[in-house]
Amino acid sequence: MYIILVYDLASDRTSKIHKKCSIYLSWKQNSVFEGEVTESQYEKLTTWIDDYFQDSETVIIYRFRNKNAVKKRHFGEDIDDDTIL
Amino acid sequence: MYIILVYDLASDRTSKIHKKCSIYLSWKQNSVFEGEVTESQYEKLTTWIDDYFQDSETVIIYRFRNKNAVKKRHFGEDIDDDTIL
Repeated sequence: MYIILVYDLASDRTSKIHKKCSIYLSWKQNSVFEGEVTESQYEKLTTWIDDYFQDSETVIIYRFRNKNAVKKRHFGEDIDDDTIL
Repeated sequence: MYIILVYDLASDRTSKIHKKCSIYLSWKQNSVFEGEVTESQYEKLTTWIDDYFQDSETVIIYRFRNKNAVKKRHFGEDIDDDTIL
């Protein structure tokens, strides 16, 4: 599946989630990651987030069958950090 | 069409884009908006963004045929500000 992940965490807690997301996804913008993941990777990531995030914080994951289901328009420099595992 | 819009702008410039996005979309998280828009609304919004954003800033718009093409998982409080025009 293809996912877009956006987070809004306390600033002193973002480096940890950034590091975790970077294992599975490509960083696209401040607080925004994208990538193709397996069911197992998705489970690992969401389990970790569920444990990590605090009540005042939010994380949203948008999920699609595959990358072709989503079209993208980018304003500004496109970060193409395709370090997808 | 259904869109997800994420922006990363200089902090003193976010209130203006927030206000603009709120005309067409629902605010879902810091720097994240979603909503169903017509072709004409999409054109108006993207033309405005194209004019407004600066080189060091980024805005990404993800576009889908409709809301059913995307599944969503939300961690934390869900803002359901459905002020879609």
